[in-house]
Amino acid sequence: MATDDRYQRGAAKLAEIHGEHGEAAVRGLEDIAPDLARYILEFAFGEIYSREALGLRERQIATIAALCAQGNAEPQLRAHIRGGLNVGLTRQEIVEIITQMAVYAGFPAAMNGASAARRAFAEAEGGSTEG
Amino acid sequence: MATDDRYQRGAAKLAEIHGEHGEAAVRGLEDIAPDLARYILEFAFGEIYSREALGLRERQIATIAALCAQGNAEPQLRAHIRGGLNVGLTRQEIVEIITQMAVYAGFPAAMNGASAARRAFAEAEGGSTEG
Amino acid sequence: MATDDRYQRGAAKLAEIHGEHGEAAVRGLEDIAPDLARYILEFAFGEIYSREALGLRERQIATIAALCAQGNAEPQLRAHIRGGLNVGLTRQEIVEIITQMAVYAGFPAAMNGASAARRAFAEAEGGSTEG
Amino acid sequence: MATDDRYQRGAAKLAEIHGEHGEAAVRGLEDIAPDLARYILEFAFGEIYSREALGLRERQIATIAALCAQGNAEPQLRAHIRGGLNVGLTRQEIVEIITQMAVYAGFPAAMNGASAARRAFAEAEGGSTEG
Amino acid sequence: MATDDRYQRGAAKLAEIHGEHGEAAVRGLEDIAPDLARYILEFAFGEIYSREALGLRERQIATIAALCAQGNAEPQLRAHIRGGLNVGLTRQEIVEIITQMAVYAGFPAAMNGASAARRAFAEAEGGSTEG
Amino acid sequence: MATDDRYQRGAAKLAEIHGEHGEAAVRGLEDIAPDLARYILEFAFGEIYSREALGLRERQIATIAALCAQGNAEPQLRAHIRGGLNVGLTRQEIVEIITQMAVYAGFPAAMNGASAARRAFAEAEGGSTEG
Repeated sequence: MATDDRYQRGAAKLAEIHGEHGEAAVRGLEDIAPDLARYILEFAFGEIYSREALGLRERQIATIAALCAQGNAEPQLRAHIRGGLNVGLTRQEIVEIITQMAVYAGFPAAMNGASAARRAFAEAEGGSTEG
Repeated sequence: MATDDRYQRGAAKLAEIHGEHGEAAVRGLEDIAPDLARYILEFAFGEIYSREALGLRERQIATIAALCAQGNAEPQLRAHIRGGLNVGLTRQEIVEIITQMAVYAGFPAAMNGASAARRAFAEAEGGSTEG
Repeated sequence: MATDDRYQRGAAKLAEIHGEHGEAAVRGLEDIAPDLARYILEFAFGEIYSREALGLRERQIATIAALCAQGNAEPQLRAHIRGGLNVGLTRQEIVEIITQMAVYAGFPAAMNGASAARRAFAEAEGGSTEG
Repeated sequence: MATDDRYQRGAAKLAEIHGEHGEAAVRGLEDIAPDLARYILEFAFGEIYSREALGLRERQIATIAALCAQGNAEPQLRAHIRGGLNVGLTRQEIVEIITQMAVYAGFPAAMNGASAARRAFAEAEGGSTEG
Repeated sequence: MATDDRYQRGAAKLAEIHGEHGEAAVRGLEDIAPDLARYILEFAFGEIYSREALGLRERQIATIAALCAQGNAEPQLRAHIRGGLNVGLTRQEIVEIITQMAVYAGFPAAMNGASAARRAFAEAEGGSTEG
Repeated sequence: MATDDRYQRGAAKLAEIHGEHGEAAVRGLEDIAPDLARYILEFAFGEIYSREALGLRERQIATIAALCAQGNAEPQLRAHIRGGLNVGLTRQEIVEIITQMAVYAGFPAAMNGASAARRAFAEAEGGSTEG
């Protein structure tokens, strides 16, 4: 598959999961690290998220869990919580994933994940374009 | 709910996910840290995993993703991969979760997660009681 | 021990260590993740911190060290520095723990821990209810 | 070598890499953790950075990579990006190091590293004394 | 650029840095996670390492620093230390990078990095194909 | 203070905490990273551990907590558990610190810390010189 095709496929997948916020976030990188922005589309979304072995709902569960456990990428956690809502996770399910992370990454990680969820839910409601 | 009830509920949930390996792993802690072993049953399994807001299949996706991304708890990752098989994840789905972690935690974490999966799949096949 | 008893014991222990700030921090989670807030009281404070095998002064040394070394949970580090003051650690001792973390987690973690201590000390003085 | 000599050597090395911003950052620690500030000069700069086995350009590559991969010390990453510019790394090279970290620490770490670079480049241009 | 071309370019770059050990390490993944193995060639080596903005010597400095600081991927750290030797880093320079990591990730990370270097240097000498 | 004095003071402090195992561990680094070994004596033990603002018992609580929470430096965690026994911590207290880490770093970190404690206690008993 040619690079152009992967880029287009990635842009479509990004839009499917993250809506216009996703495009804005990637565009926001183009001034400083344009090739990093391109790899996000080509590799992360054009390759990984475009694979059929796992549904988008399952992929968002995995990503929310990982980012909450790592605890050092709040903007991305927030974006993927909104993406989770977009692909069908309920708020209750997202909070449940975050609560479960107390077992694997400790309570502070879960508490900060809950704060990220509060902000992400508000953004999803209010149509905020931040992040 | 009384502590005894949570312990029993946790032991049943542990068995449902991890089979006899799970009981062996927790028992293996009792000589050195018996209360830690008890909290695993009472809190992790008796509380968190016993909640209904998320299915066991979804919970194992979250845990495999988190442990693979953290990259410093191979025995537990291996155990949860076997647990994932027990609650209905396919090998392909598990490898897919691990592959996705290359995006969020880098390729070394995904490579070491794949090695853990290889060992866990072999253990699941061979009936090994290790770990 | 019934769940209600652990909750009450945890609330009392939380108040002993963190004063009214602690209650406010846990309450602040109730809108988004009420069961996570409950587990903090029932498990973290009602179980772990209520055990007699280690004094509260020693427990706060351990927690401040761990959160400083992990370096990704500033609000919790700040709260536990204030809690350390409440249970008898001096400012000098807290700064000493943080300085020691340069050896185990590197200088940036210690520098950011020192910034957290500066804020926590000011909060303790001024009666701020933040965090 | 006497402690005073290491301190002086460290202060000179700090100034060589970080200019007046470096002195300000270390001074900023003196109210809360004066000995930590001193060890930064004596050990980090007076010993490690004063060794001849590696050039300053190479040292800044290593530090920027490590801090970007760890993802939990943005002020220090920003400071070392500015330090990298001071010792001869180009903006393009710094962005390249950060982009490479997507492979070893995942895309969120690289994205947040790129944000730190944007801020650091602006600070270097504008003569900001923050951080 | 078509996927096939990136794969070929990545395989050539992998061989340039890691020699036959690199091919063996990637091949070793193919039974369990064949697409992950492919992405290592296509993305990590076919894209990132094939960019001209940074020399291979500089890239290995960055990778050794990051893996040493993260401290949870010993096989990959060892492989990249051997790769560093292949692209012109001296043993002394590699040990110097690792020693510097004591400042940013603490002494245990540097000590374990030194152990990895000892093993990697012995492998490079003895022609071992492990890892 | 001259470098020689700090080295001697550090060697004495290392012996006080870690006994002959400590000297062996540092000596074991001298073939590969002699200056790193020297800095462990001069800086970690000759400076940090020689300060009077915190007792050795408190320092070992902090270090055991941090290394258990980080979860990626088992040899050092094991060494510091033995050092904790040497300066007066009881086995029960050490296990209690590790159990508490379940709250801050998750159950896998605490479980692996408990395994390290089992090994360290056996080494302390048997006079093993490993590690």
